[in-house]
Amino acid sequence: MPTRKKNAFYAQSGGVTAVINASACGVIETARKHGIKVYAGRNGIIGALTEDLIDTSKESAKNIASLRHTPGGAFGSCRYKLKSLELHKAEYERLIEVFKAHNIGYFFYNGGGDSQDTIHKVSQMSKIMNYPLICIGVPKTIDNDLPFTDACPGFGSVAKYIATSIREVGYDLLSMSVSSTKIFVMEVMGRNAGWIAAASGLASEKEDESPHIILLPEIAFNEEKFLLKVEKCVKKHGHCSIVVSEGLQSKEGLFLSDVGCVDAFGHVQLGGVAPMIAKLIKHNLGHKYHWAVADYMQRSARHMASKTDVTQAYDLGKAAVLYALKGKNNIMTTIVRKSDKPYRWTISYVDLEKVANVESKMPRNFITPDGFHITEACRRYLSPLIHGEDVPPFKNGLPQFVKLKNLPVKKKLKEKFKLKK
Amino acid sequence: MPTRKKNAFYAQSGGVTAVINASACGVIETARKHGIKVYAGRNGIIGALTEDLIDTSKESAKNIASLRHTPGGAFGSCRYKLKSLELHKAEYERLIEVFKAHNIGYFFYNGGGDSQDTIHKVSQMSKIMNYPLICIGVPKTIDNDLPFTDACPGFGSVAKYIATSIREVGYDLLSMSVSSTKIFVMEVMGRNAGWIAAASGLASEKEDESPHIILLPEIAFNEEKFLLKVEKCVKKHGHCSIVVSEGLQSKEGLFLSDVGCVDAFGHVQLGGVAPMIAKLIKHNLGHKYHWAVADYMQRSARHMASKTDVTQAYDLGKAAVLYALKGKNNIMTTIVRKSDKPYRWTISYVDLEKVANVESKMPRNFITPDGFHITEACRRYLSPLIHGEDVPPFKNGLPQFVKLKNLPVKKKLKEKFKLKK
Repeated sequence: MPTRKKNAFYAQSGGVTAVINASACGVIETARKHGIKVYAGRNGIIGALTEDLIDTSKESAKNIASLRHTPGGAFGSCRYKLKSLELHKAEYERLIEVFKAHNIGYFFYNGGGDSQDTIHKVSQMSKIMNYPLICIGVPKTIDNDLPFTDACPGFGSVAKYIATSIREVGYDLLSMSVSSTKIFVMEVMGRNAGWIAAASGLASEKEDESPHIILLPEIAFNEEKFLLKVEKCVKKHGHCSIVVSEGLQSKEGLFLSDVGCVDAFGHVQLGGVAPMIAKLIKHNLGHKYHWAVADYMQRSARHMASKTDVTQAYDLGKAAVLYALKGKNNIMTTIVRKSDKPYRWTISYVDLEKVANVESKMPRNFITPDGFHITEACRRYLSPLIHGEDVPPFKNGLPQFVKLKNLPVKKKLKEKFKLKK
Repeated sequence: MPTRKKNAFYAQSGGVTAVINASACGVIETARKHGIKVYAGRNGIIGALTEDLIDTSKESAKNIASLRHTPGGAFGSCRYKLKSLELHKAEYERLIEVFKAHNIGYFFYNGGGDSQDTIHKVSQMSKIMNYPLICIGVPKTIDNDLPFTDACPGFGSVAKYIATSIREVGYDLLSMSVSSTKIFVMEVMGRNAGWIAAASGLASEKEDESPHIILLPEIAFNEEKFLLKVEKCVKKHGHCSIVVSEGLQSKEGLFLSDVGCVDAFGHVQLGGVAPMIAKLIKHNLGHKYHWAVADYMQRSARHMASKTDVTQAYDLGKAAVLYALKGKNNIMTTIVRKSDKPYRWTISYVDLEKVANVESKMPRNFITPDGFHITEACRRYLSPLIHGEDVPPFKNGLPQFVKLKNLPVKKKLKEKFKLKK
């Protein structure tokens, strides 16, 4: 009697990106080619725990192909962290039970550092419970802070969007600066690692070009030094364009965005390091300012996706399935850089136990000595990641994205599972 | 003895847009074809007052053509308002003197309502001073609040950018809403007229699509009604996406962005109606939120320009020159809509005295009865304005814009002119 062909389980995890669905597309299209059915977790790992699975085999080939150009997470993502095997033992056991009930032999988890840690633990639990399960992580994070991979899918597209936006704003600011606005501050994501803020520096190919100053979380904020730099810039160029990472900190390690201000509802007003920096300049130097906070716009800006990023996202998903079929287990797929210019890269993998809980920050030699901009070494690294345009289809002036049917797989287990709060 | 061929003066005014340079391109290319030299005002009308003129004939045809895809104001713009002929008589006289000194017979002024008022007054002064001058306004404003023209260049591109962005963010929010963020608030420009906020509504073709709520300056903010609407939306769709105009006001006519909060520097914290709305929801309904402020990004986003908008901007500039050559005077060029679907339009003009100080706001029948979204009539009007993509050239992953040489014209007047503060 032949063994029944195993199914695959795929889930998206954490903050979504403009290209996480391209990885989903890579996983599903490749699995289909090899006759493997893919079940997706509705809202990520929560779907596995609650046995709320989506049958992707009910979707047309066209809709699955459209995932490649659709932002967000098509099956829903979640912020639900599985902790240690001891603390969350019931959760890990439940996962294996659900996988067993649905004949799942492959687990593809698409996420950042925490998710790679989770999948590693699931792999351990499958061994403990003697349930054969191939566990493969597919990297994803706009923060670009996963180790062992040249880049993290999602980052290149945010980088391209932010660099494009600050270049465009630079042309605006230049035109207005004689009689009006002299300062522009743009806040970007990145709580611990400054990769996104750093990428804005690609827009500035000459000293007079926007952005003039980049404030990174890796460099403690020095108010006096910063204000001197701003004033010098305004004197020289007539204006000053600044990109600030949301995670900018004082030398005491406090977030700058906590301005100690109480709003009309009696709440501490946390948000917005951009307005905080803008007002600091106004207060000390008197210049008129504008500020922007890109927030979710930056990570969902599929219209400005990097072709390199989209291709890598797809290929990392595809490779996860191919490695699984070759019997690889407990790995995360990775990008290996072969050369900077022209950018050449291949797909490889790394053992999951090496990835867990390692955070890749900006090396000091990627930051100029004064701490306010990026170096040539940094440009060489970053530039290829934003290369190429990959424009989604447009209709009536707007990008067209796909919404899947997301039909449920019939439940097989009797017990319901209660999520920890 | 033949009369010496007259030169033209062109200036950009007020907040710049993604397509104001396309109008400049239309003016200069058309003038060149007819052998007319164009001098541009460095930093707008300030350049005329201080006799700081730019000789555009020193620029290559290629650079002038590149203006069509370059955001910002290539010659510099300014916020400097000329008031009544009585109050600012010296300014108006000075303008005519400068024009006389440089043999300027045509004045093309590219701006919004205030600028159309200014050029009308310059035209009157030229008659008083008996100096023959053809004065033609070229419309420009992202606010879309000029009368007599179907659309204002700059608006269609902001509209396309905002609608695209809120659609993309909608896909992100939907993926995260089960376990994390349920509310997203995006702040857009428009202090008095809600056209930009309204345009975001184009992204929402079905009831469940982002944005779910639009807050317009035309509708006084009703906190209770708004919170009910948000909660209903979260119950039905699991999340709620909101676009708010920076000019949102209470029924007493106060700006909502003035939260009466004093920051760390002892200053009243004005900025950001988006965070204010987000916190209001958090405080009353408890939902996790994210917010964004697009600010200059929206009006300089040339990468997302509407092809309709770019074409109209160019054609309105071109028409200004052609009308001038036909002897028309004291007019503003306009777009006349012939049909909605397919969108057909032609170029025409209106007498400047009719334009001055009339502001075109959203008509009530463009807003749904509950005040929170746009109607079909509004969609019919707005939709064609965002149609078509007009992507700038890209190199190394980034859009390529032109910086002109902006060489000065030799001064001819002895006296310097002191600007009023």
